[in-house]
Amino acid sequence: MSEGPARILGIDPGSQVTGFGVVDRVDGQIVHVAHGTVRSRAEASPAGRLGDLYRTLCEVIEAHHPDVASVEQVFVSRSARSALILGQARGVALAALGAAGLPVHEYAPTRIKQSVTGSGRAAKIQVQRVVRRRLELSATPAADAADALAAAICHAQAGVIAELGVRSRVRPRGRGRGPVVRVRRAP
Amino acid sequence: MSEGPARILGIDPGSQVTGFGVVDRVDGQIVHVAHGTVRSRAEASPAGRLGDLYRTLCEVIEAHHPDVASVEQVFVSRSARSALILGQARGVALAALGAAGLPVHEYAPTRIKQSVTGSGRAAKIQVQRVVRRRLELSATPAADAADALAAAICHAQAGVIAELGVRSRVRPRGRGRGPVVRVRRAP
Repeated sequence: MSEGPARILGIDPGSQVTGFGVVDRVDGQIVHVAHGTVRSRAEASPAGRLGDLYRTLCEVIEAHHPDVASVEQVFVSRSARSALILGQARGVALAALGAAGLPVHEYAPTRIKQSVTGSGRAAKIQVQRVVRRRLELSATPAADAADALAAAICHAQAGVIAELGVRSRVRPRGRGRGPVVRVRRAP
Repeated sequence: MSEGPARILGIDPGSQVTGFGVVDRVDGQIVHVAHGTVRSRAEASPAGRLGDLYRTLCEVIEAHHPDVASVEQVFVSRSARSALILGQARGVALAALGAAGLPVHEYAPTRIKQSVTGSGRAAKIQVQRVVRRRLELSATPAADAADALAAAICHAQAGVIAELGVRSRVRPRGRGRGPVVRVRRAP
């Protein structure tokens, strides 16, 4: 199997804070490029916050030109209300990735933790520490940025595993050419 | 109280189909401008569909220059999984409205039905028929477009009611100036 794209953008969408992390896979090594968080200001309206999130993620994509994106699958054992609110931020992140034409891979949270720390039940702080050490960062990344970097690392490792001939559960998804829009205007 | 903005964009976000409807409020009359639906093509990826939805709604906003948006509040008694999926489409719609700087008003489904048909429990087909008659449309609009037009009509009528000095539950929301973005790059 081919190694696939080399620059991976991980996203950890959240209703308050969205983390992002960019890594390169170079000759089987995973190298840090950038990471950060997008935090909406409390005084913005819900729509204004989501609009800001979309634009900021477009700027991240524009700045780093990733080849592929990796996003955590959502754990939906929470309430319908919180699932709706989380879904809103997640939809905006996916829309920004989709509009940029990036293939999006999704991984279960346990798979990401397993891939990065060796345990599917690792605590947040463990993920932060392992990500810091693994990417040789000078400081511990914020939890949401660490989760985004972990998603990117997970995808990078899935590619390495695929090269070794081990069965991978990564499922690339195709891109659409455009929606069907039906409009009726006043005569 | 002032009459407020005159061109209203109603949106009915859905995981498969999103409806939109534009009306003008002119001298207390509500006049149809346009309506339609955005339907994602089945072969597009989830992210690709959401990206298409965002771009299409931006085109609708660009084409019609609404002053304000009206969106149905979500009824979350359904499952967390469907709330998440619906939330994704809803987040994209709100992001497009927010990025365009539109104030977004939200109304409960029963309030929209009550406002348009006189009954908070009206069936979908009743909403479609009343919207058609009310806006003097030559054909019955699709259910999602009719719901979007109904949301726009509801907001237009809330403004009229406000003018009459009746207490209104419309709550304008402010706009944010921009998110807080923290980025760490590789040195």
